[in-house]
Amino acid sequence: MSDDECVFCAIVRGDAESSVVHDDADVLAFMDLQPVTPGHLLVVPKKHAVGLEDLDVEDGQKLWAVGHRLAKALRRSGLQCEGINLFLADGKAAAQEVFHVHLHVFPRFAGDTFRISADWRVRERSELDETAAAIRKTHADLTNAAHQTS
Amino acid sequence: MSDDECVFCAIVRGDAESSVVHDDADVLAFMDLQPVTPGHLLVVPKKHAVGLEDLDVEDGQKLWAVGHRLAKALRRSGLQCEGINLFLADGKAAAQEVFHVHLHVFPRFAGDTFRISADWRVRERSELDETAAAIRKTHADLTNAAHQTS
Repeated sequence: MSDDECVFCAIVRGDAESSVVHDDADVLAFMDLQPVTPGHLLVVPKKHAVGLEDLDVEDGQKLWAVGHRLAKALRRSGLQCEGINLFLADGKAAAQEVFHVHLHVFPRFAGDTFRISADWRVRERSELDETAAAIRKTHADLTNAAHQTS
Repeated sequence: MSDDECVFCAIVRGDAESSVVHDDADVLAFMDLQPVTPGHLLVVPKKHAVGLEDLDVEDGQKLWAVGHRLAKALRRSGLQCEGINLFLADGKAAAQEVFHVHLHVFPRFAGDTFRISADWRVRERSELDETAAAIRKTHADLTNAAHQTS
């Protein structure tokens, strides 16, 4: 359930300092030490999971529900908040730094410092269709496997 | 349920072209026209909701569950995928461009073009505690309101 080497597990156990926003049986939410904007918080499952691969479906849905409600809470908190981003990094190549799955929830406002950039060219439909077919196949396999075990 | 002016509602109705990856009673997933990386897809509720404020709790959890499973599908698809990012932009200040709530799911790999940047200074515990207190208050109000109506 808990990983001795994991800083988020230490926070869940109460062995490491944090500024807690929400605490229930399955999910903990606390302030990010290095906030993108004031109010930037992290939502984590209490049961250790590295990422989306080993996160239970139900634990993921609980994580989301808390993040969703915290997004609404941020808009009502009095903190500067004209918009919200949710962000999750799964794997080192995706910029994950703490290997206990966590959902970032942070306020946005005009003039804040958060930026994303990418090569956002419009792609050909044929290319998109081909990509979709590859994902549809493995997604259908996962969906069928989930139905067989439930 | 459907918004005549909304391009994602048009896709849901089948009135606009898309490369569909997943289609169930409540959730549709299709390829982003301007992918950050090949495989970049969008997960949307079929029922029109602008953002996190008007998205049903249950519809949000269904959205998440599909996004979670599609992340696993991407890792198995044969597309270049060493990591995954989930991203949601709620409101213009958060870079939302289509005002029908959507969860981005995209593969990441070494050398891709997606970057995030921000002013990531470590903040004082007192500042984090103060921020947490403001959010805890409005979050508790929302949690209590949800319990009273369920």
